[in-house]
Order: sequence, then C-alpha cells, then structure tokens
Amino acid sequence: MSSRDAVLAVLREAGERWVSGEELSRSLGVSRTAVWKLMEGLRAAGYQLEALPRQGYRLVGSPDAVTPAEITPGLATRSFGRQIEYRESVGSTNDLAKQLARAGAPEGLLVIADEQTAGKGRLGRAWTTPRGSALAMSLVLRPALPPVQAPRVTLVAAVAVAEAVRAVTGLPVGIKWPNDLQVAGRKVCGILTEMEAEIDRVAFVVCGMGLNVNLPRESLPEAFRSSATSLMAELGASVGRAPLVQAMLARFEEAYDELLSGRFAAVLERWRALSITLGQPVRVLSVTGEAAVEGLAVDVDEEGALLVRESASGVLRRVFAGEVTLRG
Amino acid sequence: MSSRDAVLAVLREAGERWVSGEELSRSLGVSRTAVWKLMEGLRAAGYQLEALPRQGYRLVGSPDAVTPAEITPGLATRSFGRQIEYRESVGSTNDLAKQLARAGAPEGLLVIADEQTAGKGRLGRAWTTPRGSALAMSLVLRPALPPVQAPRVTLVAAVAVAEAVRAVTGLPVGIKWPNDLQVAGRKVCGILTEMEAEIDRVAFVVCGMGLNVNLPRESLPEAFRSSATSLMAELGASVGRAPLVQAMLARFEEAYDELLSGRFAAVLERWRALSITLGQPVRVLSVTGEAAVEGLAVDVDEEGALLVRESASGVLRRVFAGEVTLRG
Repeated sequence: MSSRDAVLAVLREAGERWVSGEELSRSLGVSRTAVWKLMEGLRAAGYQLEALPRQGYRLVGSPDAVTPAEITPGLATRSFGRQIEYRESVGSTNDLAKQLARAGAPEGLLVIADEQTAGKGRLGRAWTTPRGSALAMSLVLRPALPPVQAPRVTLVAAVAVAEAVRAVTGLPVGIKWPNDLQVAGRKVCGILTEMEAEIDRVAFVVCGMGLNVNLPRESLPEAFRSSATSLMAELGASVGRAPLVQAMLARFEEAYDELLSGRFAAVLERWRALSITLGQPVRVLSVTGEAAVEGLAVDVDEEGALLVRESASGVLRRVFAGEVTLRG
Repeated sequence: MSSRDAVLAVLREAGERWVSGEELSRSLGVSRTAVWKLMEGLRAAGYQLEALPRQGYRLVGSPDAVTPAEITPGLATRSFGRQIEYRESVGSTNDLAKQLARAGAPEGLLVIADEQTAGKGRLGRAWTTPRGSALAMSLVLRPALPPVQAPRVTLVAAVAVAEAVRAVTGLPVGIKWPNDLQVAGRKVCGILTEMEAEIDRVAFVVCGMGLNVNLPRESLPEAFRSSATSLMAELGASVGRAPLVQAMLARFEEAYDELLSGRFAAVLERWRALSITLGQPVRVLSVTGEAAVEGLAVDVDEEGALLVRESASGVLRRVFAGEVTLRG
C-alpha cells in the first residue's frame, strides 16, 4: 500500500472522529512534515479534507476516482480485483491486460484506467473513454475450459454487468446479443472478450468492459446520440464509479463461480431474462463473410450462438458472430 | 534473395551444364572473387560442388537443409511458405510465429528451424527437435472463422501432414485423436495449434508441426522408444526434409482452401479414413478437470470433439480436450 492509501485507510477507519497529525505520523511511521505533504497530495487528487488546529484531520469527501484506494475498501470479492493495475491513462486496458497475462498475471487481475486513448470495441472498432467520466476496465481470467466454451464467459460478464448496473442505478439495463448493454434502445456498455488458447484449452481470457457513466448527453459525439447513451444521461444524476466497479466485480465473480462449478444453465437463464434480442425479428450481418440472416431470434445456446428462425426458409440458423439489427 | 540463394538458383537452373565463374559473376553482378567466396560458403553449408578449370561449376548435391534456398524452388503453393522465417536454432517456432503474427505477419508465413531448444507439445509438454534430423515448423493462418470452428484447422493440418508423409514415404501414417500422427502405434509427429481471438472471430492461428524425420531409433530417449519413432526408423532409410516440407505445405494449403470454401465435410471424411482412434475402445483423461470417459470412440464432429459412447451408461459424450489411451 502506498503512503497515500495508508493515510486514506486511517482517515476512513476514523470516520467522523478527528485524527491528529501526531497520530497519523505515528501510525504511518513518517514525519509530521511528510503527513502535511500527503494531505496536500490528497487535496490535489480531489479528496475533501477538514483540518482544525489541535484537532487534526477529517475526510469529508472523496473524488470519483477508480484508483485502488477507492475500489479496494468496499470490495466484497475473493479474487476479482484483489490485484489492481491502475493507470491514469492507457491506450487500451485489454491490450495491457493481455500483456500482463502473457507475463503470468493471475486470475482476477483488474486493469483499470481513468482514460483510454485507443480503446477497442468488437470487430476492431474504436471505443472512446474520456477522462474521469467513464469506466474502462479489463479482467484477466484463466478458466479451465476448452476454447469452444469460452463464449460462456462473455455471456456471464454481460449478465453480471447488467445486474450490477441495475442494482446500483435502478435503470432497466438489457442485453443485446452478443454483448452490448442497452438502456431504452441505446448502448451504454460494450464488452470485448479476447483469448489466447491452444486448440483444446484456454491459456487466458481477457474480458474488457467499457461503460459510459457520467457523460452528459451533449458530450456524446453527435453521430452516436441516437444509438449511445450514458448512465447519467438516463438517470439525470451522476453515479459513483468505484461503487459500480465493486458491484460489477462482485456479481461477475459470483456468476463466474457458477459457470466453473457446472451451473452455467442458471446464468444462461438470467441472460435470457435480461435479453432484448430474443423474441424479436432480427437481421444479422455476418462478420465472417457468410450471407446475412433474417428471421426471428428464438434463443441463445450454451456456446453463445444466437438461434435465428429464418423467415424465408423456416430453417433454424446458429449465428456465432455478427451484427444484429432489430427490425421492429 | 541473398547472393547465396541467387548462386544456387543459377546452378540449379543449369542442371548438368557447367556454369563458368565469369557467367556467375555477370548474372549476379559481383566480382570473380565474390563468386569464389560464395562457392566456399556453399561448400561449408554442405552443398557438393564440382569445379573444373575453364569449365566452371556444377551442383551435384545439396545438404538436407530446411533453408528457404532448399524449400522455395520446389514449392507448389500460392501463399503457404511463400514467406519463410528460417532460424538455425530457435526456442519454439510457435512462440516466434505468434510474435510475428502479433506484429502483423501475413497468412502463410512459415517459421522453420533446424533446431528447436524449447519446443512445446500439447498441454505444455516439452518436445525436442535435435539439430538436422527433425522438422520444427509453424505456419501463421488468419482464417475468417469464429473461434468455435478453429479446431477444424487442427483436423485439416493432421489430414494434410498424414497424407503428405504417406505420399513421400509410403508409410501407413494414421491420426490419433486429436492431433498425433503415428506409424505402427508409435508417435512420429505432433501438431500444436494455438490461437488468439476475440470471442467471435479469430485474430490468428499458429499451427506448429513437429516431425521426427531422420532420428535413428537408438537416438530416441529410452523412455520414448516404445511410444515414439521416426520416419527413418520405420523406413530404414533417411528422408529429405525439404521435399517433405514442400509436400506438407501443398497438401495443407489445398485442404485449408477446402475448409474456407465450405467443403470441410470432405476433409473430415479424409480425417475419419486416416483415424486410428475411431471404432476403438478408449479411455480419455480430461485436461479440464472433468472425470475420465471410457467407452467406444464412435466419431469426431465438426468442432473436433471426439464422440465416445460410454460403456457404463451407453451415453454419448462429446470430448473436447483430453488424452486418449486405446484399450485394445
């Protein structure tokens, strides 16, 4: 733990109680001057501190940061996010997570950044994460699954993030196959899962989650205003990012445990309940060169494929990859 | 092309005809002294040259090398092996191929080494490739397939290598599921396929092939003499490595084209014909933590899974990953 995180821990522990400079100096094992400098650093980072002569310090407000200092204290997980690689700014959290995974990073490592300058969406698309108002995070997983079952991780992630956002904000978040989260028909979150694998076993999976949190509607690029939104735009109020991260990690770990202990069917049932695609007439543009499929989206199967009953032929088609348009 | 490769090309083109030093000097645009040095270099690399005053040079023998100079001239492919990354010695051709693929290497790039010092087999096992007597090669592929269909590439590779080795040597090579090639019950070749992928599209596949070619039986580690063999040990004669590589690449490209143009079923039919696993009582040890499966291997499906009819229950099980023991 850094000295700054240690000061924060002491102040949080104290709650309403004043903590004297002397007490801080003693418990951290640093000089009074060092304590004073740490306090200035905290203020500069957006923490609100009260200070009174002869009384000491009190923490009265925290910035909306996604630093380990903000995430770790309220984290109720066993391994997800127990190790955090935080960056103020990063090209792509997925790329950094893949690098760390190749170098041996353990399951549960969270890469999180306040700003992402070269974020990636599915199919190589760009995904912007402006500083301070969105979530860009990637989790390293090492599931003992054959690659053919790896898409289950994406389904699990979509369920977990949707449920977490619903729990924290009350917004009616739905899942658009395969892995977009929408509110009222507009995208609020994208999930990009990547893996490295031998043909019969996964080496690692990196699950990247990008969430528009506190972007005002007018700050969304005009081209996306009809198709994208943010939690704040829908809610009319800002949302603390660290509590969101904590809720997402807790739900994700719980659903992932279900997957690995053979209870994936129950998670899939929750996916179906959250889906806005099933039961709808859809058109799916293939990303692997096959012809577009038009018909009724009837189900998703255990390998993450969308089952579409073709209108023209009545044939049931399994779609592994593609871009869905709802035709309502 | 290096100057050495250029000299070789001229000498090969000439065949039985003598090529004068002056002619070589002119066609390569180098000095007579440089020609002489190139000839010395070729001799040092194992090429047999005849030289006669006033006549010139004639190539009468080539070393059993796997350099581009040996592979390229007889190569009948469109893209497989058209670009070659050759190393005298390398840790693992798969690791180098993955690095190059991440950096943008095109489909068909062949990484090949005369010696592999840290070769990998399936399931993280070591695979030794002694200098000069084996094949260690990896091919970069970029199939437009969802990851769920990537195992098809392994099946295609196994069929291609088995057919190529049969064509070149006449040995009755068979495929042991998922991807070992055997002669008379002993392993002669292993295939290690790795991939990087988004959850719904493959970024690249690296297909590594390790083949025991000219290892005398007594040079095989004693622990493996009952389970492994080499082409030379079975054939009683050495086999040229470059012609083998050429045949493997040609068959692989042809079968890969079939896969990508929707004719995978035909390749799978050839896999079944070459299989030594189907129709046998087997025991499959899982590599992903599930219980062992015992029963009759009845088929392989389009996702590369082995279908085993369990003796105890009569239930048909799909096995994606595992270690098969034939129980005959």
